[in-house]
Amino acid sequence: MKVGVVGLGYWGPNLVRNFLSNKEIKKVYGCDQNLSRLQFINSRFPEVQLTDKWEEFLNGYDLDIIAIATPVATHYPLAKAALENGKHIWVEKPFTFKSEEAEELINIAERRNLKIFVDHTFIYTGAVRKIKEILDRGDLGDVMYYDSVRVNLGLFQNDVNVIWDLAAHDISILDYLIKKNVIEIAAHGIANYYNHENIAHINIYFEGNCFAHFHVNWTSPIKIRRVLIGGTKKMLVFDDLEYSEKIKIYDSGITINSKEGVYDALVQYRIGDMYSPRVDQTEALSLGVIEFINAIKENRQPLTNGYDGLKVVKILEAADFSIKNKGKLVQIK
Amino acid sequence: MKVGVVGLGYWGPNLVRNFLSNKEIKKVYGCDQNLSRLQFINSRFPEVQLTDKWEEFLNGYDLDIIAIATPVATHYPLAKAALENGKHIWVEKPFTFKSEEAEELINIAERRNLKIFVDHTFIYTGAVRKIKEILDRGDLGDVMYYDSVRVNLGLFQNDVNVIWDLAAHDISILDYLIKKNVIEIAAHGIANYYNHENIAHINIYFEGNCFAHFHVNWTSPIKIRRVLIGGTKKMLVFDDLEYSEKIKIYDSGITINSKEGVYDALVQYRIGDMYSPRVDQTEALSLGVIEFINAIKENRQPLTNGYDGLKVVKILEAADFSIKNKGKLVQIK
Amino acid sequence: MKVGVVGLGYWGPNLVRNFLSNKEIKKVYGCDQNLSRLQFINSRFPEVQLTDKWEEFLNGYDLDIIAIATPVATHYPLAKAALENGKHIWVEKPFTFKSEEAEELINIAERRNLKIFVDHTFIYTGAVRKIKEILDRGDLGDVMYYDSVRVNLGLFQNDVNVIWDLAAHDISILDYLIKKNVIEIAAHGIANYYNHENIAHINIYFEGNCFAHFHVNWTSPIKIRRVLIGGTKKMLVFDDLEYSEKIKIYDSGITINSKEGVYDALVQYRIGDMYSPRVDQTEALSLGVIEFINAIKENRQPLTNGYDGLKVVKILEAADFSIKNKGKLVQIK
Amino acid sequence: MKVGVVGLGYWGPNLVRNFLSNKEIKKVYGCDQNLSRLQFINSRFPEVQLTDKWEEFLNGYDLDIIAIATPVATHYPLAKAALENGKHIWVEKPFTFKSEEAEELINIAERRNLKIFVDHTFIYTGAVRKIKEILDRGDLGDVMYYDSVRVNLGLFQNDVNVIWDLAAHDISILDYLIKKNVIEIAAHGIANYYNHENIAHINIYFEGNCFAHFHVNWTSPIKIRRVLIGGTKKMLVFDDLEYSEKIKIYDSGITINSKEGVYDALVQYRIGDMYSPRVDQTEALSLGVIEFINAIKENRQPLTNGYDGLKVVKILEAADFSIKNKGKLVQIK
Repeated sequence: MKVGVVGLGYWGPNLVRNFLSNKEIKKVYGCDQNLSRLQFINSRFPEVQLTDKWEEFLNGYDLDIIAIATPVATHYPLAKAALENGKHIWVEKPFTFKSEEAEELINIAERRNLKIFVDHTFIYTGAVRKIKEILDRGDLGDVMYYDSVRVNLGLFQNDVNVIWDLAAHDISILDYLIKKNVIEIAAHGIANYYNHENIAHINIYFEGNCFAHFHVNWTSPIKIRRVLIGGTKKMLVFDDLEYSEKIKIYDSGITINSKEGVYDALVQYRIGDMYSPRVDQTEALSLGVIEFINAIKENRQPLTNGYDGLKVVKILEAADFSIKNKGKLVQIK
Repeated sequence: MKVGVVGLGYWGPNLVRNFLSNKEIKKVYGCDQNLSRLQFINSRFPEVQLTDKWEEFLNGYDLDIIAIATPVATHYPLAKAALENGKHIWVEKPFTFKSEEAEELINIAERRNLKIFVDHTFIYTGAVRKIKEILDRGDLGDVMYYDSVRVNLGLFQNDVNVIWDLAAHDISILDYLIKKNVIEIAAHGIANYYNHENIAHINIYFEGNCFAHFHVNWTSPIKIRRVLIGGTKKMLVFDDLEYSEKIKIYDSGITINSKEGVYDALVQYRIGDMYSPRVDQTEALSLGVIEFINAIKENRQPLTNGYDGLKVVKILEAADFSIKNKGKLVQIK
Repeated sequence: MKVGVVGLGYWGPNLVRNFLSNKEIKKVYGCDQNLSRLQFINSRFPEVQLTDKWEEFLNGYDLDIIAIATPVATHYPLAKAALENGKHIWVEKPFTFKSEEAEELINIAERRNLKIFVDHTFIYTGAVRKIKEILDRGDLGDVMYYDSVRVNLGLFQNDVNVIWDLAAHDISILDYLIKKNVIEIAAHGIANYYNHENIAHINIYFEGNCFAHFHVNWTSPIKIRRVLIGGTKKMLVFDDLEYSEKIKIYDSGITINSKEGVYDALVQYRIGDMYSPRVDQTEALSLGVIEFINAIKENRQPLTNGYDGLKVVKILEAADFSIKNKGKLVQIK
Repeated sequence: MKVGVVGLGYWGPNLVRNFLSNKEIKKVYGCDQNLSRLQFINSRFPEVQLTDKWEEFLNGYDLDIIAIATPVATHYPLAKAALENGKHIWVEKPFTFKSEEAEELINIAERRNLKIFVDHTFIYTGAVRKIKEILDRGDLGDVMYYDSVRVNLGLFQNDVNVIWDLAAHDISILDYLIKKNVIEIAAHGIANYYNHENIAHINIYFEGNCFAHFHVNWTSPIKIRRVLIGGTKKMLVFDDLEYSEKIKIYDSGITINSKEGVYDALVQYRIGDMYSPRVDQTEALSLGVIEFINAIKENRQPLTNGYDGLKVVKILEAADFSIKNKGKLVQIK
């Protein structure tokens, strides 16, 4: 297969490197309007054929796959053009800026039997795959809450607020791990520097008395990447900044014997052992590339496909509407 | 002065110990309906005179001060009776369960020239006093956001949710540190075990584009006590679980040159040195006792008085209303 | 039983408190030459009968047990007088300053059927008891090395160096956990401030290719309390400053297929899961008091008896000799 | 200049990458006997000219510099041949396996006016350069002790023990930072797996009552990289695993008023503020390359030259002799 990567800024070179090292990919092409980016790629990966003309990608090189790593606002027109020219597409997160755009892209792909891969890259990390395994095995019992903090200093995006940038990761992870329906969303936050919010708190109400919260922040002096998952049986902590103990499972919990009015004697705290499973260190992006290629060869949906991308976009849209309306509650259908 | 402590459960013995060790206090009395608590106090502090009759406190012992460390719902009737019998009062946080109750107590105290001390104990810790000093000196510049996490496993309260229990601490700290007016509040969360919320996220909008968020949780497998304060000049992290480096000030920040449409070239991240000031280790409660006694002797308001207690209760009331209405925005006057 | 505590400085009050709260102890007496310490004890524990005359302890009060919490150099004369007056003795660590003294005390006690309890207090902590259980069960396989770091700022002792103060703890723990014979000892270090060493590194060679090292330091800017134990099957980390995860067991190791000259292909690293067992939080001193009382009642040796105290003193003596001779190797018989 | 890198295993590719990105280097050549390593380099750096014939390096390519990244035992013959063929040499640490070899290489280089660069790479890190600056400014006062821990699981070397591998780093850092003369050395440790020690404790006595200790260990379940430096004025902690706060300076210390016999009243502990300077993140290796090229152009010794390499080898030799003789004290001239 031949793959073309459009957008060679921050993330694009990682796509180039991973496509280059996959045996199924015969040739990698690169496209960017910025000549200095083309020079950079040429110096690091001389075997990549480069162009600053997007039209070459659509018609010139007989590409099988176009990977889109450009700013969010351009995902839709580039993806649409690629699909209409018969290319499978790989799109960076978030899939699109509007859910209608995502739906239209899905429809075109379905009609032409092309595959859409949305690069929810955390889904392919060893840690998230291990947590999925733990949850699916029922180790935690029923999930009661999910709490995520993703804060650090920088990198501001020009075109979107912190929700579209950072929360896109967390919502894709949540959607992968927690198989419950989202009912309502509310988001709060602040834009301290210019018109895009740099801090956001997103609250998600699920059916079945389950609740999630995300704190995303571009302006924190320290970096935190931590998820708490509370289950009826056990509780889990995922700290992505830990080197070797990213996941900890606590055999801890609360038992309440619900005789009215006498709670204090009947609340039992259980603090038990802790267990930290080994996490596979394979680079997530290389597994994403394998999954996409296999999906194309097997003519099936990849694990992170257009429908997953659409679900994430819907939640991002709702959160963005809510934060601009001081936490107005938004229903999700 | 003679002081009586009513309520000898979890916190009352700490009051007894600190009143005993203050030179201005001649005699300490204790009262509880639970005989086993009286026995416990007798074995540890044999010099305390004990009773299970609240009336003795009002009339029998000629007390100057009554300290109230009973469940929240009983604060108002006990405090009212004490004031009406001419006693200065010390009340555990939160001051009362309703703002009208707090207002009535303030009025009685004013009329009779009695002092109310509300035990917002964190205000007297070395760490919070140091942060106050840093903020007042203008080291951080203008405060843009305040973010607090206070989570652990247990202790459930019978009569109130996690907002009235844990967030009372954070709101008193916030009110002490940030001298800006609160405009609106919204709270989200969940009650996983019985009818009181065990997780709450409280969002506070201040005038002047400042925002605060509190995460309080009784059902976290791990304990976290961390505050981030973002200023226009510097940023501060307060981690109360650190042994010796509770406060860290980061000479870090973001500068934005606001020429329209060219954000990326103009966003500057500054990551500089960090500084951690030494924090005084004196027990907060002993300083609170000194402050209250001095306020009585000097016939002035103590640092944490009825008005401070009232402000905290108003915010707790608003947050409690909001969380029971899925984050409905509440105006604060 | 009636118990008298001599030496009411830093540690003595903890002994008083724990003897007071044990049901088998009818009355507690205290003795110190320093009147301000007697006043301190009187204000906190009014039920304790106090004296500044050591003779009263030997003859006056009909004591069953004398607990000695005075400086190391006085342990021997006080303990000898107590035993010769028919008292069971509790002695703080280190047992004595010379091994001959320890041997003499053991002999007197044996002749008169009195019990000696040496307060190797860490043996009674939940963490050390749990590690013992893990080692005895064979979870780690054969122990290959034991490495301990115990450093912080202060408290200098007047009469001894950092070996006699801090390493006494570590050697008692090591002796309890590792049932192998010590062959040789060498110690290095420095006295930066006065004639007692403030830093020491103690190296212990065991039979069976096992090695231990202790780093003790009174002059470290940060506090570290960490033990690594390397076994042929698994490895253990004990961090006493961790709040809830003091013990971590790593399913990690090295396998070497010993074909000469081709090591690189045959060294296998195994990095597996980690497991952290819950640790009992009961105060060690209260368990020590129970053990001593039971040993007296059952007429048996307590878990930490004179022989254990002697073994620790022998190693401390050897280390002290070695450090004063720039690491001269000392044989242990 | 034209540079040839011999040895393309673990570290060699980093040399290739850094030489490639330096503007003064016109062409990079690579040499390894292992064809799979040549293929690896070809796929990643197609512009590098490759050979499996060492003779080509000496005669064929007209090289200015030969960089040697092969196993320690081969450093001497390769370096000697390179110098005798008129090449400047870059040698990985440790410089040689015997001090006589190092001396001979220095002599050849001197005679032919060629430069020797020994890759003590930590000297070029932002952290070590910052510590040097702090020490040279006298912020810590006089250095009393230096304590370093460098432990983790793997990588075993085939040909040398843990001293030659890991301690080589620490000794080069120590020699750079502490400008005092080493007097004596003793090392202890154990070989648990085969005939090379996997754990070593190296004790170094300096003139002027200063002491250093290194703990290096290939078989620790956890990774630790921490240095404590105790000065008469302040103390420093360097934790290389910290992401952003690698260096912490504690305004803490001990003051002793030396009136004989009354130590306790006169020992003063001072625990003050802590300060963490920002550390430059530039890749050390790129700065090393620049330094070497400048030294050649300016006809001067580079910062880490043959004499520095020799000093480190002498200490390694002494430590290796000592560890094989159970800590026998070795004098250093």
